[in-house]
Amino acid sequence: MITLRRKLLAEFIGTMLLLATVVGSGVMAVNLSQGNAAIALLANAGATAGILYVLIVVLGPISGAHFNPVVTLLMCMRGEISTMEAVAYIAVQIVAAIIGVMLAHAMFGLALIQPGTHVRTGAAQWLSEAVATFGLVLTILLGIRRRPAAVPALVASYIFAAYWFTASTSFANPAVTIARSLTQTFAGIRPDDIGGFVLAQLLGGATGLLVATLLDPQTRLDEQG
Amino acid sequence: MITLRRKLLAEFIGTMLLLATVVGSGVMAVNLSQGNAAIALLANAGATAGILYVLIVVLGPISGAHFNPVVTLLMCMRGEISTMEAVAYIAVQIVAAIIGVMLAHAMFGLALIQPGTHVRTGAAQWLSEAVATFGLVLTILLGIRRRPAAVPALVASYIFAAYWFTASTSFANPAVTIARSLTQTFAGIRPDDIGGFVLAQLLGGATGLLVATLLDPQTRLDEQG
Amino acid sequence: MITLRRKLLAEFIGTMLLLATVVGSGVMAVNLSQGNAAIALLANAGATAGILYVLIVVLGPISGAHFNPVVTLLMCMRGEISTMEAVAYIAVQIVAAIIGVMLAHAMFGLALIQPGTHVRTGAAQWLSEAVATFGLVLTILLGIRRRPAAVPALVASYIFAAYWFTASTSFANPAVTIARSLTQTFAGIRPDDIGGFVLAQLLGGATGLLVATLLDPQTRLDEQG
Amino acid sequence: MITLRRKLLAEFIGTMLLLATVVGSGVMAVNLSQGNAAIALLANAGATAGILYVLIVVLGPISGAHFNPVVTLLMCMRGEISTMEAVAYIAVQIVAAIIGVMLAHAMFGLALIQPGTHVRTGAAQWLSEAVATFGLVLTILLGIRRRPAAVPALVASYIFAAYWFTASTSFANPAVTIARSLTQTFAGIRPDDIGGFVLAQLLGGATGLLVATLLDPQTRLDEQG
Repeated sequence: MITLRRKLLAEFIGTMLLLATVVGSGVMAVNLSQGNAAIALLANAGATAGILYVLIVVLGPISGAHFNPVVTLLMCMRGEISTMEAVAYIAVQIVAAIIGVMLAHAMFGLALIQPGTHVRTGAAQWLSEAVATFGLVLTILLGIRRRPAAVPALVASYIFAAYWFTASTSFANPAVTIARSLTQTFAGIRPDDIGGFVLAQLLGGATGLLVATLLDPQTRLDEQG
Repeated sequence: MITLRRKLLAEFIGTMLLLATVVGSGVMAVNLSQGNAAIALLANAGATAGILYVLIVVLGPISGAHFNPVVTLLMCMRGEISTMEAVAYIAVQIVAAIIGVMLAHAMFGLALIQPGTHVRTGAAQWLSEAVATFGLVLTILLGIRRRPAAVPALVASYIFAAYWFTASTSFANPAVTIARSLTQTFAGIRPDDIGGFVLAQLLGGATGLLVATLLDPQTRLDEQG
Repeated sequence: MITLRRKLLAEFIGTMLLLATVVGSGVMAVNLSQGNAAIALLANAGATAGILYVLIVVLGPISGAHFNPVVTLLMCMRGEISTMEAVAYIAVQIVAAIIGVMLAHAMFGLALIQPGTHVRTGAAQWLSEAVATFGLVLTILLGIRRRPAAVPALVASYIFAAYWFTASTSFANPAVTIARSLTQTFAGIRPDDIGGFVLAQLLGGATGLLVATLLDPQTRLDEQG
Repeated sequence: MITLRRKLLAEFIGTMLLLATVVGSGVMAVNLSQGNAAIALLANAGATAGILYVLIVVLGPISGAHFNPVVTLLMCMRGEISTMEAVAYIAVQIVAAIIGVMLAHAMFGLALIQPGTHVRTGAAQWLSEAVATFGLVLTILLGIRRRPAAVPALVASYIFAAYWFTASTSFANPAVTIARSLTQTFAGIRPDDIGGFVLAQLLGGATGLLVATLLDPQTRLDEQG
């Protein structure tokens, strides 16, 4: 039996390291890439995929390795965690994500909190976030049923691709979105733009759940079970 | 028992996301790479490999994850799907590929349909497409028999390599070829050049089937079975 | 029964090839990258990850594939190797790391020993090394318990990410730190800065052990067993 | 029972596609990379690793997927193939490698045969080839005994790393060396330099065999068995 305290610690460590990687690798990449943002995004995407694979393998057996309120909501709807647990998970994810951003800033000697200035708004950006989250939910729900041991590699590969095929570089995660509003570096987002991103992520996630259920009716039964 | 409707939905979602990735990651990469097309192709190839791995793992158990009329033809010849199913698969692949291109355009705020202008013709290009499809068919046919669980990683790795070792960046897929004629971005092809590409792909695929049968006579028996 | 001599040979070969790769790929990358350090670090990180995966798979069953005094200390605390063995391991790791640097220099026709001049000091660098080693220890300790066959891929993926998300490019290894003080190339460090790095690595490693124990109390029992 | 004819066909197809990838991806990468050779080598190494993984998985169960006279010699010494078979393997590998180079040239519309002009000679280059082949032999011999299913990924990862950590970009293969003397592109070598490379490869391979035997005495028994 894994206690809630240990699960929350796993979500905390995982989400913190995920954000430290997303923001830290962005800073490093921009510092080194002489303004060639494609090389920066390549490094950023590769580092994010690498750490996601690691964190999901080692923390998955403890907390499920959600690191993402959308995933926690899904697992709550499927009855895998209670509503109370889900609330605690999401609170911890948001706090840990913010601390992860601060940790990245500290490692690079930057101000710990910086209000984001990167404008990310408009229909194309929202569509991007909806598609990104749709694909992530599909990857997780179908992956869990068909090849659970591969979920860490699946999520890592998916996010690597989604950094590139969406115009928003695929945040696909409300906790990540909130935390990234506290950095002015490569990975940042303007605080005003959080709302649109999160709404798009929720819509995309819901669509992903719907399509996963159509593709695999057993998925629906799981939710009722 | 998996219904045809679910299989076609899987082919639709998979082919759509594949094309959204091929075209979307090309747009993102060109936007960011300051004219260095090698970095753009690196990102494009990496993103395509990443999404192929994911889509074949999660949708393979539903539809076989063909996403490619050449693969559907092969599976039809091997008796794994009926002729009627094959016709439906191919129609869905072409429609889904076109919608995937439009989705990529929408995510980047571009015109949804753009007649391709990228000239891709001549003997070297056709040879490239034949070799690309030859290798893909060999990878799939031998992979299925020898290490079926590795087929998603095999196809992803093969396509990553083939983007680079062929002069055509390895379309190796008639549905993809048709859909990419509707974009003027990095991944595009002039509509006039579709015919040569598709013909080369069919010839290369047939050669791949022949060589796979020589390498592994059991492959032939499967086709008769 | 594997003799100590064979274990030490495995640690020697592995640590030597690891350093030859870290330093050699850095030299090659800088020679070719026209001053774009992001591309150089991408190659450096990719080559390091590739060789780590190989060395841990093939030498792990012989010596445990530590290649790192921090890991050897941990395994000694867990009772997996004796104190005498640990001392021998660490001595061999340091010697092999230095020879690996010399081997890289020889392959590129450079002076075999070069006192490092790359300044790496200050709170941000030390925090980076502590975080890097914290994550490495967590990856190894939790990975061993949860998916031992994946440890080579986990360590490789983690180090790839850590090269990017830390400001120090993640040495995370005292033997590597000492050896890299003998090169003036891309991967070098000033000899004066070794102390701070090693101290930070030990603190980070201890924190990693603590958090691993909190996340998975069974880890503590193993240490007593 | 797999006939010799099928084994030789597998060696032919595999070696041909390997060389088409090594040379073709080099041409593509140089064409696109605006003179930044680090990006070109990154693409070249990634494509080579990708195709090696595929070819070893799908052709390994047929011929052993040597594609390399050094590997064939080792397997002959271990008694896994007869001397007659080894001679046939090596002859096919050399012919197939040359045809692979011609295929790459044809795909890029270049002259089919081009005497190489890239000077690769001197002690540093020879040491590089010896180290590269040493590591390759160690990877294969220890990998086969410890985790045979991982050998394709091990060889691919090793070669990716070795492209970067050696000054010669790791040919590590006499058939590849001969064939690459027939191209003036990125991957070429001057015909005069073949001898030094092959000798270094043989010495490195022999050292690899010796060290593998010391690390794992069972390896020696296999050779006698």
